[in-house]
Amino acid sequence: MMVIMHESATAEQVAHVVARVEEVGASAHVSTGERVTVIGVIGDREELTALPLEAMPGVERVVAILKPYKLVSREFQAADTVVDVRGVKIGGGHFAIIAGPCSVETAAQVMESARAVKAAGGLLLRGGAFKPRTSPYAFQGLGEEGLKMLAEARDETGLPIVTEIMDPRDLDVVCRYADVVQIGARNMQNFLLLAEVGQLDKPVLLKRGLSATIEEWLMAAEYVVKGGNRDVILCERGIRTFETATRNTLDLGAVAVAKLTSHLPVVVDPSHAVGKWDLVAPMAKASVAAGADGLLIEVHSNPEEALCDGEQSLKPKAFKQLMDEMRPIAQAVGRDI
Amino acid sequence: MMVIMHESATAEQVAHVVARVEEVGASAHVSTGERVTVIGVIGDREELTALPLEAMPGVERVVAILKPYKLVSREFQAADTVVDVRGVKIGGGHFAIIAGPCSVETAAQVMESARAVKAAGGLLLRGGAFKPRTSPYAFQGLGEEGLKMLAEARDETGLPIVTEIMDPRDLDVVCRYADVVQIGARNMQNFLLLAEVGQLDKPVLLKRGLSATIEEWLMAAEYVVKGGNRDVILCERGIRTFETATRNTLDLGAVAVAKLTSHLPVVVDPSHAVGKWDLVAPMAKASVAAGADGLLIEVHSNPEEALCDGEQSLKPKAFKQLMDEMRPIAQAVGRDI
Amino acid sequence: MMVIMHESATAEQVAHVVARVEEVGASAHVSTGERVTVIGVIGDREELTALPLEAMPGVERVVAILKPYKLVSREFQAADTVVDVRGVKIGGGHFAIIAGPCSVETAAQVMESARAVKAAGGLLLRGGAFKPRTSPYAFQGLGEEGLKMLAEARDETGLPIVTEIMDPRDLDVVCRYADVVQIGARNMQNFLLLAEVGQLDKPVLLKRGLSATIEEWLMAAEYVVKGGNRDVILCERGIRTFETATRNTLDLGAVAVAKLTSHLPVVVDPSHAVGKWDLVAPMAKASVAAGADGLLIEVHSNPEEALCDGEQSLKPKAFKQLMDEMRPIAQAVGRDI
Amino acid sequence: MMVIMHESATAEQVAHVVARVEEVGASAHVSTGERVTVIGVIGDREELTALPLEAMPGVERVVAILKPYKLVSREFQAADTVVDVRGVKIGGGHFAIIAGPCSVETAAQVMESARAVKAAGGLLLRGGAFKPRTSPYAFQGLGEEGLKMLAEARDETGLPIVTEIMDPRDLDVVCRYADVVQIGARNMQNFLLLAEVGQLDKPVLLKRGLSATIEEWLMAAEYVVKGGNRDVILCERGIRTFETATRNTLDLGAVAVAKLTSHLPVVVDPSHAVGKWDLVAPMAKASVAAGADGLLIEVHSNPEEALCDGEQSLKPKAFKQLMDEMRPIAQAVGRDI
Repeated sequence: MMVIMHESATAEQVAHVVARVEEVGASAHVSTGERVTVIGVIGDREELTALPLEAMPGVERVVAILKPYKLVSREFQAADTVVDVRGVKIGGGHFAIIAGPCSVETAAQVMESARAVKAAGGLLLRGGAFKPRTSPYAFQGLGEEGLKMLAEARDETGLPIVTEIMDPRDLDVVCRYADVVQIGARNMQNFLLLAEVGQLDKPVLLKRGLSATIEEWLMAAEYVVKGGNRDVILCERGIRTFETATRNTLDLGAVAVAKLTSHLPVVVDPSHAVGKWDLVAPMAKASVAAGADGLLIEVHSNPEEALCDGEQSLKPKAFKQLMDEMRPIAQAVGRDI
Repeated sequence: MMVIMHESATAEQVAHVVARVEEVGASAHVSTGERVTVIGVIGDREELTALPLEAMPGVERVVAILKPYKLVSREFQAADTVVDVRGVKIGGGHFAIIAGPCSVETAAQVMESARAVKAAGGLLLRGGAFKPRTSPYAFQGLGEEGLKMLAEARDETGLPIVTEIMDPRDLDVVCRYADVVQIGARNMQNFLLLAEVGQLDKPVLLKRGLSATIEEWLMAAEYVVKGGNRDVILCERGIRTFETATRNTLDLGAVAVAKLTSHLPVVVDPSHAVGKWDLVAPMAKASVAAGADGLLIEVHSNPEEALCDGEQSLKPKAFKQLMDEMRPIAQAVGRDI
Repeated sequence: MMVIMHESATAEQVAHVVARVEEVGASAHVSTGERVTVIGVIGDREELTALPLEAMPGVERVVAILKPYKLVSREFQAADTVVDVRGVKIGGGHFAIIAGPCSVETAAQVMESARAVKAAGGLLLRGGAFKPRTSPYAFQGLGEEGLKMLAEARDETGLPIVTEIMDPRDLDVVCRYADVVQIGARNMQNFLLLAEVGQLDKPVLLKRGLSATIEEWLMAAEYVVKGGNRDVILCERGIRTFETATRNTLDLGAVAVAKLTSHLPVVVDPSHAVGKWDLVAPMAKASVAAGADGLLIEVHSNPEEALCDGEQSLKPKAFKQLMDEMRPIAQAVGRDI
Repeated sequence: MMVIMHESATAEQVAHVVARVEEVGASAHVSTGERVTVIGVIGDREELTALPLEAMPGVERVVAILKPYKLVSREFQAADTVVDVRGVKIGGGHFAIIAGPCSVETAAQVMESARAVKAAGGLLLRGGAFKPRTSPYAFQGLGEEGLKMLAEARDETGLPIVTEIMDPRDLDVVCRYADVVQIGARNMQNFLLLAEVGQLDKPVLLKRGLSATIEEWLMAAEYVVKGGNRDVILCERGIRTFETATRNTLDLGAVAVAKLTSHLPVVVDPSHAVGKWDLVAPMAKASVAAGADGLLIEVHSNPEEALCDGEQSLKPKAFKQLMDEMRPIAQAVGRDI
């Protein structure tokens, strides 16, 4: 890292920083410019992270040179990670559509939606049994009962299940049913939950937080991989900005950046990003063209009966049409839907 | 609420919305304008929340008329809530300085910081034993060992303890030591944790999320109060914006809005908001003038040895000076430091 | 519009609002709910805009029902506007690539870049002679000399010219050379300039402001169309958010929203949005798939000699490859490159 | 500056950057770390600004060491600039209240508002004759007729006039009446206008743009000072964020940062920042406590007749009360109201 000193920093202050750096076994190289002194620091990442350089007298700011994540970076692993979910592959050219209702509401609703997903060519079934809701007065999900409904739909259709976990105490019950464990946007920095799913031998779908930088998102993935679980699927789902015409602002630049800097597969959830069903199709197509490895799409057999996010769900027919329209785009960017 | 129909909505679509509204026992009043039809809906909040009006054909958007929170609103309770922490009062004109190190590191550091806080007139001691850290390679806190150090400092100084909880599984151990349980910004929408602390008979300090709207912050408080715990202290700590010169953007407008719309006490954490010790004093003074009921300030006996956020910590001497400078401002706005 | 009264509003306050509304010839319909009164107001848009309803005693907030723009809306004109630039069509299924250097630097640079654009299939030539620069110490553009270089390149290649105007006093000189007049992001709310280009009989390319909502962007277009100039091309170029990994955050949801709510053609500038040449190609493809009517791409014959934005410019070879890769995507969404 | 190379950068790429740097007369110092090479560059600011280092092969990113502004920095001038407006001083401990209506509407309204400002202790009169309005259908200001009304109010009350300029073609007429020329938020990066007011011998009040960083704001001031006009007053007026409960988010951290890094006086406009009259008073007090050198407050003799921003204007009585409440706070931070 580089320690940039204030213009007014004294020689003693520079010497003090150098001494503290050397105390932790790192080396310091001082460059004295006409107006500003810069100290280049080389040493162990963890030791240096713990050193409060910015609190030292005379320090203006500290600039990191190396990326703060390691295991999830392209430098660490050049080849794309391919996640295998009961035979369905995601990443490395394999494209997967994950679709289904926002929340599990009834056995019939899940089964009908699963059939529609299967019929249109979807490869995984999504559905929430534990739901994070802004309002304590809103429907909070069916819990294990909902997970059983998902499992029944899997039994019939063969589609593996992607479902959210919110509470570390639910790990056992969720893992009994889920094929992919989803960490929602609001839990992207629930570091204890990240550490727990890092112990699993099931893939983790990690949604980007509403206001998380790409770097923080990759750091959250680093928590999981550091725990031993290498099967992380990143999911861009829109960030919070000043724009209110869409529910969130879909950040496809983040997909391109994540694909360049990390080997992990990246999928996109256009439904939550835009929040209106009639904007989902153009954003789904754009995601494919931007190089995503898959999509998470809300499909509901009857959106206007939905207890959650009905306004952003596609009906089976619209979903089928979208699947057909995406195929040539996927082909054009070397993906196979 | 108001359902605003598309300009192209048909009479059938209007009738369908009315029918669905009436099905859940609510009433609908149709206003037909020259170009647009608006349907006023009056009925039970919870029933209506579950009705996916925006997913219905012909609906352009839905506008809420009533605020989505109830128990925390001024309409529900006009008088200020006064939270009592072992005799220290916050709210209703009572102003409290909560100060101490970001993270508990050593017994000596906590004790020295606590003495400095006490000597300068601080009323509560803050310190983190469980730390949410963006990097898995950063110091994660001392856990129960740290809580014990805080308790020792309380034994000597008499200052009650404010400390963060991150994991519902730690509730027992944290409650064994803490006088106020803090919910951090990254957990503001950890709804399970909110529900758990809603069961406690200890005050909860609820930090605003990095990208949480004021309404979402109040909804998070509603989760706690709905659980039965009325002693919630709101804490503004800066929001994430495009500006990078400060760590976050301190939103004092949120303090003014929260004081107008809610009866709960509101404190401000200027240290996390700006992230640089030399900006803390002006922001602390501004917070007092804006009408806050207290401050959360990082004080460290030796910031450049800090394992966390040393760059934003005040030394005891600077903290003492700030306390002195704030007194006349507090007096000017009817608060007593 | 809807005037939502405070819960505590008195009957006199309601009556006062109604009286003021009726004074300007509009009509008011009062709905009294259990807790809140709402006043529906129907009348002339301009009269009502001038009425400070939110300043009246007892008013909580005012909700607009109708969109604030008219001439640029789909409701006003259902069919896509097709802009014709010397025979090159944009909109209504016609897709146009506008490419060239960020700033005009030398005659050779412009000519070489123009040839590369032409050879790869670009339809219009872009290049800035008047440059808005954050720093007064940065290169500010060649002025009329630069416009002449663009005209020479047009003479040889036949590509019409898109170039920026910043100062109303430059209208004559810019119009002498330009085929499309560009309003930059920083001038999107330079209302005098908008009024001036509203008088032209040349197409206007209107970039979205860094922090402009979609609605404000369409309002800016309304200024131009209201002046009499119907040939407005909207251009999404990224918005400012907290994310720093890309120069701006490309908001493709805005393209989808603008296409739904307005009849004007929408193009995308991926180069300014992401700010790094290796992210331009995926964002260009995503823009095509999202339904854009064209692209504005920075192409420079020798980016590392560029005086402006070299890091985001494509070399001729990379541009050619991108053009080839975009064709099947364009075809898949009914556009012809 | 520091050029940080990619991990994969070759020795040739490093040598190429060094060669290009030396070509423009600057010097380069190469530091080769275990994984990354960093090139320190020292030389002339303007020459280096024009060098597209980020476009060169192998370059990961470029980090600036020096601030990009010079004339407005504390390093260039340690002592506070004190702006003198017809004897009213702003900066260096002198605090000034600038108040008046958002827009000039009638002679009586201006005169009454001016009298109220004067009576309460305000030192300058604000009022807009040329108004930037989002909608082409909104009131656009009275132009020179409005300026005359302001001048009449000055004649009677002795309050100098602060008024906005939007169009460089209006410079003569505005300067005929104005004592301080205001550049609005939407024109903060209207670089031609900045250059023009840099030629004046009248003070300039420069509002921060809605989404301008503090650095960009200071760069805009640098444009003016570079032109020869040293009398620039910076004005924080809220930035655009995701929060919608207030019109903008008042960024008082920006005031503290600007006071630390620049010698220019900084005033705050709480009225535009929050957009609701009942939030103006707490934000005004907070601004004083944060160290501002003055305030810009909307005062209207009859807000509900206002043609612009009536909802955020104080009535004379509320303004008088606010003035009284601010005095002890100003005193506490060493300012004299």
